[in-house]
Amino acid sequence: MRENEIAQPGTPEPGSRTRRRFDLQEAIAILRRTPAVLDAWLRDLPGGWISAHEGGDTWSAFDVVGHLIHGERTDWMPRARMILAHGDRQAFEPFDRLAQFAESDGRTLASLLEEFSTLRQQNLRDLASLRLTEADLDRRGRHPALGTVTLRQLLATWVAHDLDHLTQIARVIARQYSDEVGPWRAYLRVISGTQG
Amino acid sequence: MRENEIAQPGTPEPGSRTRRRFDLQEAIAILRRTPAVLDAWLRDLPGGWISAHEGGDTWSAFDVVGHLIHGERTDWMPRARMILAHGDRQAFEPFDRLAQFAESDGRTLASLLEEFSTLRQQNLRDLASLRLTEADLDRRGRHPALGTVTLRQLLATWVAHDLDHLTQIARVIARQYSDEVGPWRAYLRVISGTQG
Repeated sequence: MRENEIAQPGTPEPGSRTRRRFDLQEAIAILRRTPAVLDAWLRDLPGGWISAHEGGDTWSAFDVVGHLIHGERTDWMPRARMILAHGDRQAFEPFDRLAQFAESDGRTLASLLEEFSTLRQQNLRDLASLRLTEADLDRRGRHPALGTVTLRQLLATWVAHDLDHLTQIARVIARQYSDEVGPWRAYLRVISGTQG
Repeated sequence: MRENEIAQPGTPEPGSRTRRRFDLQEAIAILRRTPAVLDAWLRDLPGGWISAHEGGDTWSAFDVVGHLIHGERTDWMPRARMILAHGDRQAFEPFDRLAQFAESDGRTLASLLEEFSTLRQQNLRDLASLRLTEADLDRRGRHPALGTVTLRQLLATWVAHDLDHLTQIARVIARQYSDEVGPWRAYLRVISGTQG
C-alpha cells in the first residue's frame, strides 16, 4: 500500500475485506467507542470477573483499564505531538507497561472507567484539533526499541491496541470457565487457544 | 471441581483468580451485558469495519451478530429445555453454524443488534423463570457430537461463547491494520496471533 494515497472513508479496498487502508475518521470511530464498550461490559460486573486473570503476572480486566488510562496519559497523543514537534530526532519516552499496578491501587473500577472515558474524549478532541493532513501522517518519529515509525503507524496502533486489550479481557474472563464448559472446550477457541 | 458444590456469588475461589466455579447469577451478569457491548461497539461504525473479515469463509462482525441471533433462537435455551424435559435420552438438534448467511441477508446491522438484544432479554427471563437448582444444573443431556454434557456445562458454554465471539470481532477489525501498524505489529498479539 502506498502511504501517500488518500483513503476514502467508508470505501473498502476493491476486492479486499481483509485489509483497510488507514483512514483517520475510521480510526476515530473505533477509538471513541472503546470507553462505552468497556463501560457496558465491566461496570458493576461481579468482582470475581473483574479481578480474574490468567495466572502469574498476567492482567485482569481491572489492570487492563488502568493500562489504557496510562496510555492515554503518556503514550498516544504525547508521542503524536513529539513526532510533529521533533520528527525522528528524539526517541519517544519508553512506555511503562506496569505503571497501572501502582496508579490503580485502591481505585474502584467505576472511577477508572470514568477516567479512561474522560481522557480518551480529551485526546480525541486534541487529535481533531491537529487537523492532520496525509503528509502529516507520513511524518516520522523514533521509537526507542522499534526505530523509525510514522504518525500513521502510531495512530493505527492506537486502534489495534484497544482491540488487543478487548480480546484480552474477553479471553481472561472466558478462561475462568475452562473447566466448567466440559467437552465444549474443544469448540471454544477463546479457551483452547486456537485462532480460527 | 465437584459439580454439586454450591458456588457463592461474588466470592472468588480462595487463592485462585484463574478459574471460577459456575454460578448462575455471575453467568447471567455476563450474558445480559453482551447486547449492550455489541451495540456500543458496532452501531453506526463505518461499513468497512462491519463487513471486514479474515479472508476465505471467515466471518465479519455482521456475520457474528447473525450467528449470535441464531444461537438465541435454536441453541442455548432450546437445549436447556431439552435437558430438563428429556435428559440424555434424546440428542440435541445439531446447531447450524452457517444459518446466519441466509437469515441476515438484506438486513441492516442495526436491526440485527436490536433482534439480538430482544431475544437475549427474553431468553434470560425464561432462564430465570426455570428457577434452576444445583441439582438441575447437574442434569445431563446428549450433544450430537460431544456426547454427555450437563446443563451447567451448557450454560457455562453460553457465557464463554459470547466472549469467544467478542474476541473474534476485535481480532477481525484489528487485523485490518496488520500492515498499517508497521513495526508495532510485533507488540500486538491480536495481529501477530500469539496469546500472552
